[in-house]
Amino acid sequence: MTDRAACVARDAADPLRRFRDLFHIPAGLIYLDGNSLGMMPKAAPARLDGVITGEWAEGLIRSWTDAGWWDQPRSVGAKLARLVGADADEVVATDSTSVNLFKLLVAAVKLRPGRRVILTDPDNFPTDIYIAQGIAAMLGDVTVKVVPLADIPAAIDESVAVVTLSHVDYKTSAINDMAALTARAHAAGALALWDLSHSAGAIEVDLHAARADFAVGCGYKYLNGGPGAPAYLYIRRDLQAAAQPPIAGWWGHSEPFAFATDYRPATGISRFLCGTQSPLAMAALDTALDIWSDVDMKALRAKAIGLTELFIALVETHCAGHKLRLAVPRDAAHRASHVSFHHPEGYAAMRAMRARGVIGDFRSPDVMRFGFTPLYTSYADVFDAAAHMADIFATRAYDQAEFRAREKVT
Amino acid sequence: MTDRAACVARDAADPLRRFRDLFHIPAGLIYLDGNSLGMMPKAAPARLDGVITGEWAEGLIRSWTDAGWWDQPRSVGAKLARLVGADADEVVATDSTSVNLFKLLVAAVKLRPGRRVILTDPDNFPTDIYIAQGIAAMLGDVTVKVVPLADIPAAIDESVAVVTLSHVDYKTSAINDMAALTARAHAAGALALWDLSHSAGAIEVDLHAARADFAVGCGYKYLNGGPGAPAYLYIRRDLQAAAQPPIAGWWGHSEPFAFATDYRPATGISRFLCGTQSPLAMAALDTALDIWSDVDMKALRAKAIGLTELFIALVETHCAGHKLRLAVPRDAAHRASHVSFHHPEGYAAMRAMRARGVIGDFRSPDVMRFGFTPLYTSYADVFDAAAHMADIFATRAYDQAEFRAREKVT
Repeated sequence: MTDRAACVARDAADPLRRFRDLFHIPAGLIYLDGNSLGMMPKAAPARLDGVITGEWAEGLIRSWTDAGWWDQPRSVGAKLARLVGADADEVVATDSTSVNLFKLLVAAVKLRPGRRVILTDPDNFPTDIYIAQGIAAMLGDVTVKVVPLADIPAAIDESVAVVTLSHVDYKTSAINDMAALTARAHAAGALALWDLSHSAGAIEVDLHAARADFAVGCGYKYLNGGPGAPAYLYIRRDLQAAAQPPIAGWWGHSEPFAFATDYRPATGISRFLCGTQSPLAMAALDTALDIWSDVDMKALRAKAIGLTELFIALVETHCAGHKLRLAVPRDAAHRASHVSFHHPEGYAAMRAMRARGVIGDFRSPDVMRFGFTPLYTSYADVFDAAAHMADIFATRAYDQAEFRAREKVT
Repeated sequence: MTDRAACVARDAADPLRRFRDLFHIPAGLIYLDGNSLGMMPKAAPARLDGVITGEWAEGLIRSWTDAGWWDQPRSVGAKLARLVGADADEVVATDSTSVNLFKLLVAAVKLRPGRRVILTDPDNFPTDIYIAQGIAAMLGDVTVKVVPLADIPAAIDESVAVVTLSHVDYKTSAINDMAALTARAHAAGALALWDLSHSAGAIEVDLHAARADFAVGCGYKYLNGGPGAPAYLYIRRDLQAAAQPPIAGWWGHSEPFAFATDYRPATGISRFLCGTQSPLAMAALDTALDIWSDVDMKALRAKAIGLTELFIALVETHCAGHKLRLAVPRDAAHRASHVSFHHPEGYAAMRAMRARGVIGDFRSPDVMRFGFTPLYTSYADVFDAAAHMADIFATRAYDQAEFRAREKVT
């Protein structure tokens, strides 16, 4: 088994090593939750101070043009596009993932008028399922069909308007085969919508290669765009003219400043914008994306595999006998950049780890989840986290009332 | 006619005088566009720096609970509620005005299943009309009826599910009679939804007194919550249990961290939350609302009338003969806190004023619009702005190619 010195040596040889220096790493913290909220780029405070004390305080209304605020959904979207295998005019940054999913699912259902089923799987991120259920309740004639992932291909028939799935499972880290499932959907005349929240910035994503129709994703996880960062949406170019935005706000109007009485959607993806976004939040995301422009995604993927393989090996060795059960694919080729374990005391154990400064998260009912963000997670972090975890299980440190008491854990 | 010294004296005696010192006033600027984007509270940079370098950079995921991020839509909503005559549990800060309007209009239509008309007027803010049109296109069996404001009462019949109007007209500054129109809607069995974007923070708003059913509003205009600040929505308490959120995201779930597969809406107004909001944007709005907690709204209204009366009198006196035509009610009782004039050269004239550091805005086709924000607009500002305007018309300073060239004006 590897020792700490070997981990430190791997860090020294890490081709992504310089990126860790671009983030603020709190002293004494081992942060394995960048898949929930990414760390702060060191460039963010100065950039945001410029937005606040310069663009807002001094520029005021003029900054909508002079500081480029008006174009941020597109300019930030263009930077996101590079990360997901799309063209610059196929992605906009806007709203939340839930709202974007709503807009695209409604548009997808309208593009297939003879078909009334939204198909998804029970392990999709819950809000994705809820959004679909809300649409079904709203439209009345649409049904949400929830079938296990293994049964999805067979369930795609002529009743299905759109298949909506996560590219990477938020609990199990399993990578869905975007290309194969999209091809299956297309073969049956259905559309495919992918949620990239747990894949973009964690693994290579290529929407064009997969011929994906629609996608949404989150700015605040692996992308490090800041808490509540703007989300994004993707529409393949050839679908943009036909896709109708259900939330027909003025930002999606062909002439937003004509203040006309009739809605006429903009050409292109801008029609899926609705209302005014926060330039502060956009600037934070933009700052993070500037880091991504230099990242070699193959190196990122290699390090993600290195980190997750190491963690699994260390935990399974040093926590052997403590009933931890791996909740992610053992084959790294099928696993993204987080690792989960089932454990009946997972909730208390995660709280005990947090008390020691090792931050992962807990997902109901029994999943301890650890995110490995190759831009700033080090092999030494992995070693130290596994050592704490081993100690917590060896000493039953989780077996204290303060850790067992249920609080909301994000 | 008043002179500048008299204006300075009025400022010295202004009971709201101390509030101006709480905002950053750029040197040399006369800012009459706080109705589009409010000025920055001086407390904002330090507060936001704390969110960025403390709550995000150091607290990371823990800040969702430790820094109160999770409760911001409700805690900020409670502060907004005071400004609009609602109770703390009837308002949440979230999303954009357009998205909130969408959610509430769909909910309203669903609450009146036998009725298929959304009624509005052509002078409502365009995005409000667009959103209604988008809903009609999406639902198929709903029609948007657009009739002049004067004909609205007669048009409210048993086909109307919901009447959606602006409390204050964004161009003409006219105050709609919220109580009378809501009563008319209720008498016919319809619901009433009010857009407070140009009234909250400008005039007294009392949703309870008017028995309003739903309301939405904007955080970045008179409220000074920062560019792209979170918007808000109001649902009268007795409607909350029956109102169904069409965008059924996890933030509106009764147990968001149970990650259940079925959507079960939260009790109360939280069900109209969807996805994750920006704690940065929320903190900026919260900072501004702390200023509002000390504002005497009767004094605010009195100063709004004083500022707008003065501006109208000065312009009509000193720009006489230049074809300016008042676009707002002459009776201050019917006018909110902005003043507009029609002028065929309005576009170029506004650009000429901006070139001199007097910031108002232009609204198509010929409206020069000036916002008077009693918290920080001074009587001396009004005097100076009118003097510049008089000079621009007297010298035809607008008659230059650089001012006539059409650019997007926000």
